[in-house]
Amino acid sequence: MSDGASDRITPVILCGGAGTRLWPLSRLDRLKPMVDLTGKGSLLQLTARRTADAAQFEPPLLVAGTGEAEAIEGQLQEIGVAPGCVILEPFARGTAAAIALAALSIAPQALMLVMPSDHLIGDEAAFGAAIAAAKPLAEGGWLVTFGIAADRPETGYGYIKRGEAIGGGAYRVARFTEKPDAATASAWLAAGGHDWNAGIFLFRADAYLDALTTYQPRVAEAVQAASFAATREGGRAIPDAEAFAASPAQSIDRGVMEKSDRVAVVPVAMGWSDVGSWEAVHALGPLDGDGNAVSGDVVAVDSRNCLVRSDGPVVVALGVEDLVIVATERAVLVVPRGQTQRVKEAIDALEARRGSESDSPPCKGGD
Amino acid sequence: MSDGASDRITPVILCGGAGTRLWPLSRLDRLKPMVDLTGKGSLLQLTARRTADAAQFEPPLLVAGTGEAEAIEGQLQEIGVAPGCVILEPFARGTAAAIALAALSIAPQALMLVMPSDHLIGDEAAFGAAIAAAKPLAEGGWLVTFGIAADRPETGYGYIKRGEAIGGGAYRVARFTEKPDAATASAWLAAGGHDWNAGIFLFRADAYLDALTTYQPRVAEAVQAASFAATREGGRAIPDAEAFAASPAQSIDRGVMEKSDRVAVVPVAMGWSDVGSWEAVHALGPLDGDGNAVSGDVVAVDSRNCLVRSDGPVVVALGVEDLVIVATERAVLVVPRGQTQRVKEAIDALEARRGSESDSPPCKGGD
Repeated sequence: MSDGASDRITPVILCGGAGTRLWPLSRLDRLKPMVDLTGKGSLLQLTARRTADAAQFEPPLLVAGTGEAEAIEGQLQEIGVAPGCVILEPFARGTAAAIALAALSIAPQALMLVMPSDHLIGDEAAFGAAIAAAKPLAEGGWLVTFGIAADRPETGYGYIKRGEAIGGGAYRVARFTEKPDAATASAWLAAGGHDWNAGIFLFRADAYLDALTTYQPRVAEAVQAASFAATREGGRAIPDAEAFAASPAQSIDRGVMEKSDRVAVVPVAMGWSDVGSWEAVHALGPLDGDGNAVSGDVVAVDSRNCLVRSDGPVVVALGVEDLVIVATERAVLVVPRGQTQRVKEAIDALEARRGSESDSPPCKGGD
Repeated sequence: MSDGASDRITPVILCGGAGTRLWPLSRLDRLKPMVDLTGKGSLLQLTARRTADAAQFEPPLLVAGTGEAEAIEGQLQEIGVAPGCVILEPFARGTAAAIALAALSIAPQALMLVMPSDHLIGDEAAFGAAIAAAKPLAEGGWLVTFGIAADRPETGYGYIKRGEAIGGGAYRVARFTEKPDAATASAWLAAGGHDWNAGIFLFRADAYLDALTTYQPRVAEAVQAASFAATREGGRAIPDAEAFAASPAQSIDRGVMEKSDRVAVVPVAMGWSDVGSWEAVHALGPLDGDGNAVSGDVVAVDSRNCLVRSDGPVVVALGVEDLVIVATERAVLVVPRGQTQRVKEAIDALEARRGSESDSPPCKGGD
């Protein structure tokens, strides 16, 4: 590694994620990255803090929907982080395009650390070490992904199969695989050599753009045109909508990482969670002596293994087990643990009944 | 029966009842009689409507705590009932004293129909017929109670054992019994001849006051003094606090009815419920195809045999069974059906934590 300012990594924080799965805390007008699940700041704030060390990192770039600008800027201001730029997509075209917008706004050889804005990382030292391990590879033109050490046969994630070791704890990626069935997930966990794909990447901007041009030329072309015609307002950049509309919707995983042969994985165990369900929030703890994770104005009496959370009214859980109870001023959810992935069903039922009322739950995106 | 105005019955509506058991819908600043459980009016309003026929009934007398005057008057005004008087007790001294306050405010030979303000009666025609059956007895000086036909081995109520038949479908009361154990309740249900004591009475004012003087002379004396020195403000009467304080706390059941030998019971099946728990509210229905009783802004998905009620936020019940979920703008309760009698435990826990916060749940009275 060389030293000097040009050596600093540019964090690129992707602020998508409707967060229907964390309804009612997340909703159309407060997306999942904006919620505080830990009492230590919103998921976005925790993400931005993770790369706030100016010795290592440039100011972050954020890519978000146009409606999120004020919320994002406000949350970053709260924690004293001044973004390099907030790039506002006129509409979502997938992560391939979103990351390309960021790549085009920095120097070609700059390193980009791409991170979702709605994950938790418990062991930041491990994350830092993984970044350090990945850096020489990224500088050498590899597209590096971080493989989360699987600790259970999870069927909800994509997996990365490690290929040959390429030094420094990294591996060539043998294969990306979408969500496996339970038997496959168990076999992989037992066999080892398979990590979860968390959507965290490190690469040079030009390496990514080159791969994008090769494998997704229409995305690359549309984003380049949209960036060229972008308007800037203060710290915001707004790509040209007409040009951006020409981009196909595509994810970086399917569109680029699965296709390139210069893709490396750095496995890391860092207490990662995508907090993709209320079940996952319960797992974060802390738990009381009865296995309950409670927060807010909550009283749990003779209740066990529940998540009880209030951001509004006082919530009393009495004699219940294995339930998730989440209350805000506007909505209350009660669902058994183990069924929390079904929240979307309830939201669909609610939307069907409510039609287009302004207070309706989120319907944005595919989270 | 003779005809004419003097023949009309005076309804006496007792507005006690803290309603901790229906928390959070009932609470310190909105007692159980004031809540609307059916969508057809509050329990008080339904009670007052039941005896609103001016051909049969005088304007009602209400006995309540001083803090309830405005709520009561407001609710009666909403349904177009003008009370004869709202008697405001400076503090509660039990039903024996409360009923005596009403008895002293009307003509000695007037008939009083004493009713709790927080019960439901589904079959008002049956109630009317029972009143008609009781009237000659009451006119003849009997203290008449109405015995609710037991339809389950309930251990939460007092029972009345019928003695000899005294005509017109009425019986001399053989014995009042407090809450029996389950085996006793089952035996009584099988044997018949035992009715629930609902605390609904018909008698002449003087008959009651005579019995009170005989069996509870200190109550009678204190109430007489308090009434004599009462102040009137518009339609309100406020007994003298110092005199009233001399009355022992005593219930009409234990203090008078159990002691007098001129006590009759008129059995009646009238769809009565004291709505003494959320379980009882669920039993009122109506139930959807999955056995759920839902009201308010509620969505129940794949849920069975639940009571889900909101007077505030939208409530989503997803994949749950046999739960009671009640939400207001201020509080949410989640408790399994079958454990709803335990609500007081939760309130106690809440109060212990909150201390004397003004938004705390009710702690008034013994309901």
